[in-house]
Amino acid sequence: MYNAKAYSAASATSPLASTTIPRRDTTEHDVQIEILFCGICHSDLHTVRNEWSSIMPTTYPCVPGHEIVGRVTSVGSAVTGFKPGDLAGVGCLVDSDHTCPSCQANVEQFCHNATFTYNSPDKHLGGVTYGGYSESVVVDERFVLRVPANLDLAGVAPLLCAGITTYSPMRRWGNIKGKKVGVVGLGGLGHMGVKFARAFEAHVVVFTTSPGKKEDALRLGAHKVIISSNAEEMQKHAGTFNFILDTIAAEHDINAYINMLGRDGNITLLGAPEKPLAVSAFALLFGRRSLSGSLIGGLKETQEMLDFCGKNNITSDVEVIPIQKVNEAYERLVKSDVKYRFSIDMATLKTE
Amino acid sequence: MYNAKAYSAASATSPLASTTIPRRDTTEHDVQIEILFCGICHSDLHTVRNEWSSIMPTTYPCVPGHEIVGRVTSVGSAVTGFKPGDLAGVGCLVDSDHTCPSCQANVEQFCHNATFTYNSPDKHLGGVTYGGYSESVVVDERFVLRVPANLDLAGVAPLLCAGITTYSPMRRWGNIKGKKVGVVGLGGLGHMGVKFARAFEAHVVVFTTSPGKKEDALRLGAHKVIISSNAEEMQKHAGTFNFILDTIAAEHDINAYINMLGRDGNITLLGAPEKPLAVSAFALLFGRRSLSGSLIGGLKETQEMLDFCGKNNITSDVEVIPIQKVNEAYERLVKSDVKYRFSIDMATLKTE
Repeated sequence: MYNAKAYSAASATSPLASTTIPRRDTTEHDVQIEILFCGICHSDLHTVRNEWSSIMPTTYPCVPGHEIVGRVTSVGSAVTGFKPGDLAGVGCLVDSDHTCPSCQANVEQFCHNATFTYNSPDKHLGGVTYGGYSESVVVDERFVLRVPANLDLAGVAPLLCAGITTYSPMRRWGNIKGKKVGVVGLGGLGHMGVKFARAFEAHVVVFTTSPGKKEDALRLGAHKVIISSNAEEMQKHAGTFNFILDTIAAEHDINAYINMLGRDGNITLLGAPEKPLAVSAFALLFGRRSLSGSLIGGLKETQEMLDFCGKNNITSDVEVIPIQKVNEAYERLVKSDVKYRFSIDMATLKTE
Repeated sequence: MYNAKAYSAASATSPLASTTIPRRDTTEHDVQIEILFCGICHSDLHTVRNEWSSIMPTTYPCVPGHEIVGRVTSVGSAVTGFKPGDLAGVGCLVDSDHTCPSCQANVEQFCHNATFTYNSPDKHLGGVTYGGYSESVVVDERFVLRVPANLDLAGVAPLLCAGITTYSPMRRWGNIKGKKVGVVGLGGLGHMGVKFARAFEAHVVVFTTSPGKKEDALRLGAHKVIISSNAEEMQKHAGTFNFILDTIAAEHDINAYINMLGRDGNITLLGAPEKPLAVSAFALLFGRRSLSGSLIGGLKETQEMLDFCGKNNITSDVEVIPIQKVNEAYERLVKSDVKYRFSIDMATLKTE
């Protein structure tokens, strides 16, 4: 066991502050990683503030961060896939039971015994796992991803959560080449959805409430932007979409988007509004449409996504911040004031 | 043009009563059918009472009935698939545009120019189409189905709507052999769902609020019955279903059933409650579940379903009534007092 610098929250109402946390010594299957960048995900904020207390109460101190990219500093004797000096990534999961049907189907995110990167029982040290707002992390080799060497690392970090969250449902839906694909909302998830949909050669349409985002949506790869408050424009495109990715976590009118779908179209939710969605059964029956949910992705698919990003030169658009600005970044995140993801330069932790 | 005996409603508040309606002369592509049995579908009642006025207002007089089985009495010169004396069936559709993507994909039920069997603009005679509560009907050959000779005709009639409505989504979901399949509600649709799911060799579970239906559900082919108000039993089966067919048109807690689904499970709605369904996004995200709608089926699949029924000796459980009891049957239908579908013996119309 050794001590590592980190930023943690002492309670739901405390700001994140510099601290020291224990990390385990590298076991034979472990990879030790010096963290270079860690993305800020909305889940970090929800967990730090204990906003998901009913389903996943937060244990304090809490060190969030599950969009981790860094460089391998040491490996256990049984590790075969990594060596010191390699680039490496860690996402939302650091362990699972490896035996359940979900693990065997390579969808470890649905393993009932999965260990999340933070705020999950720590099998090695007791207490809970600590995330990536730290100078280093030690992770079982099976949960460490290979990172393409050609990409900007600050922009790679968010791929580990926002990237796979948008990539997975698009892949699962099928081949979207030449299909009309909608992305609802242009934030951290939405901007990745646009990049992937464009890379898969879909006809990409962004739905947004903000006319000011139009230009940026086109720059990111959208072919068209629909201002969702414009009823006339919405009506013009009703029934024409094959697939829609809905990235909005706030309450919104889901039927407006279900009605955009053509026959056999699917809309997949990535966010979970607190209140139930009011879904019109008629909208689903006529056109045999479907409404699904999706949750990050398994390790195999996350690696596939990273490789795809390497090949297609895809990263997240990030604003790089020093760790000392993390509390300010949280305030801005609440106001959606970021284009499109914060990535913490973890070198700034060294000065603490 | 000739006159045919029929039962029609003169207004939303009038009972169905004996009348005479015009039928077109058999054109070269037409099949004329003497109707032997016509099932009573809840849609008949909704249309007669103009309860769907906001989406499909009813034109009076209204002759409902789209679960038609009978015998061919004459055919047009270009008809190749039928000859006088053949058994024949007609379902919810009597025409479509044959050119749109839905028609070309054999899902004519989604053709925007489809002609429904009743209360749809009649291209031949003007006014609206008249349904199967009549002694005969004249239909384009392409919308006439072959009926297996080995089946009880009274029980065949409901296959044309209730049958295909339950068969189609089950087939579309994939091979359910060996899968755990739920059927919510044991009425006209539900009892067909049970029969098909059993014939497809699924493990069939019926969800019902009525303990009194248990024995009958098992007789119809269910392996198990869950009383949905029993929270403990519901909890025991949470997360274990591959596919659920929800046949309930009344308001109900859809999340209770979404939570029954395992990973990648699907629940398909067949009924459309008036109010929107309150759907928990969390329930969809965790487990990557989906909620779909389905609407009858295309002609090709309806024929496939009838052939399957012939091979597997499947018919609807019906209570045969004379046409003179149709208004009484409607009152009983409102109270779900039928096991499980009414089938009108159209020979009784001859005495009017």
